Amino acid sequence: MTTTATRRPAPVVPAHGALRPLGLDEVELTDGFWAERQRRNAEVSIPHCDRWETKVGWIDNFRHVLDGQVERRTGREFADSDVYKLLEAMAWEAGRSGDAELDARIEQIALLVEAAQDDDGYVSTRYGRPGQEPRYSDLAWGHELYCFGHLIQAAVARLRTGHDDSDDTLVRVARRAADHVCAEFGPGGRDGVCGHPEIEVALVELARATGERRYLDQARLFLDRRGRGTLPDIEFGRSYYQDDRPVREAQVLRGHVVRALYLAAAAVDVAVDTHDDELLEAVRGQFARTLARRTYLTGGMGSHHQDEAYGDDFELPADRAYSETCAGVGSVMVAWRLLLATGDVSWGDVVERTLYNVVATSPSRDGDAFFYTNPLHKREPGEPADPDRASPRALSRLRAPWFEVSCCPTNVARTLASLAGYVATVSAEGVQIHQHVGCRIATTLENGEAVRLEVLTSYPDDGSVVVRVLEAPAGDLTLSLRVPEWSVGRATLDGRAVDGSTASVRRKFAAGDEICLQLDVRPRLTAADDRVDAVRGCVAVERGPVVLCAESADLPAGTHVDRVRLAAEAVPRDDSGSGGGVRVDGLLVERADRSWPYGPPGDPEPGDRVELRLVPYHDWANRGPSTMRVWLPQAR
Amino acid sequence: MTTTATRRPAPVVPAHGALRPLGLDEVELTDGFWAERQRRNAEVSIPHCDRWETKVGWIDNFRHVLDGQVERRTGREFADSDVYKLLEAMAWEAGRSGDAELDARIEQIALLVEAAQDDDGYVSTRYGRPGQEPRYSDLAWGHELYCFGHLIQAAVARLRTGHDDSDDTLVRVARRAADHVCAEFGPGGRDGVCGHPEIEVALVELARATGERRYLDQARLFLDRRGRGTLPDIEFGRSYYQDDRPVREAQVLRGHVVRALYLAAAAVDVAVDTHDDELLEAVRGQFARTLARRTYLTGGMGSHHQDEAYGDDFELPADRAYSETCAGVGSVMVAWRLLLATGDVSWGDVVERTLYNVVATSPSRDGDAFFYTNPLHKREPGEPADPDRASPRALSRLRAPWFEVSCCPTNVARTLASLAGYVATVSAEGVQIHQHVGCRIATTLENGEAVRLEVLTSYPDDGSVVVRVLEAPAGDLTLSLRVPEWSVGRATLDGRAVDGSTASVRRKFAAGDEICLQLDVRPRLTAADDRVDAVRGCVAVERGPVVLCAESADLPAGTHVDRVRLAAEAVPRDDSGSGGGVRVDGLLVERADRSWPYGPPGDPEPGDRVELRLVPYHDWANRGPSTMRVWLPQAR
Repeated sequence: MTTTATRRPAPVVPAHGALRPLGLDEVELTDGFWAERQRRNAEVSIPHCDRWETKVGWIDNFRHVLDGQVERRTGREFADSDVYKLLEAMAWEAGRSGDAELDARIEQIALLVEAAQDDDGYVSTRYGRPGQEPRYSDLAWGHELYCFGHLIQAAVARLRTGHDDSDDTLVRVARRAADHVCAEFGPGGRDGVCGHPEIEVALVELARATGERRYLDQARLFLDRRGRGTLPDIEFGRSYYQDDRPVREAQVLRGHVVRALYLAAAAVDVAVDTHDDELLEAVRGQFARTLARRTYLTGGMGSHHQDEAYGDDFELPADRAYSETCAGVGSVMVAWRLLLATGDVSWGDVVERTLYNVVATSPSRDGDAFFYTNPLHKREPGEPADPDRASPRALSRLRAPWFEVSCCPTNVARTLASLAGYVATVSAEGVQIHQHVGCRIATTLENGEAVRLEVLTSYPDDGSVVVRVLEAPAGDLTLSLRVPEWSVGRATLDGRAVDGSTASVRRKFAAGDEICLQLDVRPRLTAADDRVDAVRGCVAVERGPVVLCAESADLPAGTHVDRVRLAAEAVPRDDSGSGGGVRVDGLLVERADRSWPYGPPGDPEPGDRVELRLVPYHDWANRGPSTMRVWLPQAR
Repeated sequence: MTTTATRRPAPVVPAHGALRPLGLDEVELTDGFWAERQRRNAEVSIPHCDRWETKVGWIDNFRHVLDGQVERRTGREFADSDVYKLLEAMAWEAGRSGDAELDARIEQIALLVEAAQDDDGYVSTRYGRPGQEPRYSDLAWGHELYCFGHLIQAAVARLRTGHDDSDDTLVRVARRAADHVCAEFGPGGRDGVCGHPEIEVALVELARATGERRYLDQARLFLDRRGRGTLPDIEFGRSYYQDDRPVREAQVLRGHVVRALYLAAAAVDVAVDTHDDELLEAVRGQFARTLARRTYLTGGMGSHHQDEAYGDDFELPADRAYSETCAGVGSVMVAWRLLLATGDVSWGDVVERTLYNVVATSPSRDGDAFFYTNPLHKREPGEPADPDRASPRALSRLRAPWFEVSCCPTNVARTLASLAGYVATVSAEGVQIHQHVGCRIATTLENGEAVRLEVLTSYPDDGSVVVRVLEAPAGDLTLSLRVPEWSVGRATLDGRAVDGSTASVRRKFAAGDEICLQLDVRPRLTAADDRVDAVRGCVAVERGPVVLCAESADLPAGTHVDRVRLAAEAVPRDDSGSGGGVRVDGLLVERADRSWPYGPPGDPEPGDRVELRLVPYHDWANRGPSTMRVWLPQAR
């Protein structure tokens, strides 16, 4: 593998795999749902995160420890990581857009980090200085390796967008940190793992970006050490940080969701790069079972607030859904890696569902406030978040500009900035389009021939996806488009029915040729597996990849959304001109309190017929405090 | 009020109120459901708690701080309180039974506490000594006043069972502690409250037991200070410890459930003893709304694990029910106080439901293991608790012998030991029986005439409750028995239909006369208010005051309880000879996993007809690991 190949500007660049991902230099988002969000991310969200990290002092932490003023440090143990995630977001954005100011800001922050770095490569604002606890004195909760992981991922983004040791401080700092980790935790070193996985996935990508195998070996060592109980037993059990059993022996993802997903992503990476098919199959099976039994309709994961964890199988309460935004990012990471490794395009469904209904839900319309948790039912409207103060994550009823634990905003920012890296792949035969977004694609086939395409679509508002060929190879070319599961059997390509989950055509193309995939995005009713007790007797409405919800803002003033029932035999229909909204026949019921809310089964409550307006879940809570529900009880 | 009256041996002895509670000297449990549990409590549970508190070192903590070995102290901030709750349980039990060994053990532990007490009355193993943080340096989480509250309640139990300053160390220690609290937190003193209410309810009872008004005044002061934000804002908000708004301005109980209930109990006490009808009505309204919207079928309260708190209205997930055992004890405390204050006997329904389905559920059949949380649905059987080590409370799937936070076992123990104090009341006209238990009652009416009764019943197995008069007054006597809400309209007294929620007869009685209340305990189906989303499409089966459940132990081997459906039109019937069990027609359904558990609404799953056996919820998990559910989905 050439250095050039490993430096392809994409977040995930496996050494092997069924499909090769296209990078940010090969795919450019042009317009539509995601291009808009990527633009707002660049213009609003990234500067917003920079301002807040400055305001709450997390960037200045590096200055303070350098000045010996450790008592001035602010934020939680892992505050450094949020600076690094911001750097990663900036790095992808600068690489994408060529913004020189952003480049300068990256360098400015990186110089602060470098100044605080110890001679042996260790860098932390929280541990190891006079007045602080020693390095690695608390692997379970200290998050030092976790922070290094995000530092390394930021540096990988720099390496892959045209920088290296010679011109980039961040790259130098991260490599020294990675070398320190290998020295400290390598064979014969400390026999430990970090309570929060992240270093593993970062080290693999650093190995890929530098071609240095020892980073991969260190990632594998961390992975193999996991599940041997080197971390302490805690109230939530060692499953909380996936130290309850070896990675390859687990049956399902469990414990803290973000930890579980970052570890799973790393396991796929290590499996792929070391040809460990057994490990790959183990993680694939765990993730598949997690999707079948522990995932919300939105693609969100996490049923427990207490430990930010998966619940038992089918324990998926809508109102107490945790569904952390970062878990959505983690799930996209795992699904995309499985797609690249296996070539099974249906993993693209998971990516799409999670992007539209978790990742896109977090930022506000304006891009300057974020959801930390993404419940599917809100019973109380809640108060707007304090605009001037970091909000506690536990109380978020509305989006907040910043959190005391603020992992989510920068995680969304780095994902949106690098989103073009999740759109398409290339193989010997042709190009595969996994996410249907307005974009331009310019790549070369394995035989070296150039292909240029333009994807024209207003998906998901509309189901039509046109691929126009701008430049074609001399020989046959295969163009493939993913058909989402909800449209399988109802999709057409150039007017002909498509069989299965891929719409594919192989022929000789000429510039100007077009193919047109038509997906059936008409709104539809969706029911849950009968074992999901929390939503028994309810249905949801989906439209294409978008989950809809009823929000009190669309009901008569003062009406609680819990009064909404779906009429029997209701058929949802497009609400023309309302940004992806849907209308459906419903009822508004009224039930008076009883002193004791349990008694003999009675008649269904009466209700007044109404036409309900449903809005995309990702767009809820943009109109002030409201109550909301995705799952609508069916009138009995 | 005479000293004799204030020293009546009952847990709650209000200065005023509609009904006067009978004490442990007036009511003796003789046989049946509760007498059995009280006996097992005395023989097994109290010695078990004593052994564990010794084993984990919480009793020895007093010795260690005296010896200056604070580093040997074990347990959480509030470990002292568990020693005090054990002392209270022992005090009621010794008072009830006259057990001299128990008396000696109380004195032995009390001497340890006395030795550790400072000259000014302050006593804590956790704060205030060299090597420890200063006294009251953390009112939010330090629990010092909470611990004093339990110390005082233990002393009140001694005062009311024949002891006083002259013979009882515990009484002396607690009075000095109470005096210290009044001096430290009285007018002009520290303007603070404890993060965990408890001191308030204890001080009122101490005022009642000693006749010293200043303890009542101090309780009132604490109550009036609450809701003024003297405690810090925290991630869960100040509602967590009810410091978000003044007690009399709240609409509903909220935040940490045990804190909310202990505070509500104290508010009723203060309201009654200071003739503050506005406060009484405020708390009555809050508790009524809490029962109507935030209470499980079992009477359990608490929907969140994270903050051990109430959820929003109708947020009552069966699987994630926290329903802490201590919250059950707290709810009984509030309901009983409201009954005494208002004379509304329907509060006895709340006491009964919570005793049978929360308090009785916690201890194992053998009395040596306890539930901390009491969920209504268990999806995974879980592992048996470690028999030799305190268990984390968060992971309890089966009962555990002890917990790292072990408030529940001693809370059950003190409640069972003093249970006779919740059975009956007396008024000018006669005697009111609120809990239908086999017992002997010997009291005097206000006119000084003696009444002796015997209650003969095998309730709740059987619905017949016979009251036999052993000694009658010369004039007319009213005998009243509560008719539970589920039997209203279906109860008879001596064969005649009873109107309403009290079965009452007033006439001249002679020794040997009997009256017989017949309640309809036949099993019945119960549905929840339509707004309780978590159990939509389900019904529960109740039998008398007992909630039933399906447990996998009664299904074919290896069958998960989530396969159970109730057949349409199913009518539950008594399972003769099975200890309160019920049989009902059901189905066992099988559903294979789909890769994505959401899709178009489909046909109901097929199932095999079976006869289901349901067992009392309070008896579940006594046959090894199992899955369980109270709410049974109805076949569609």
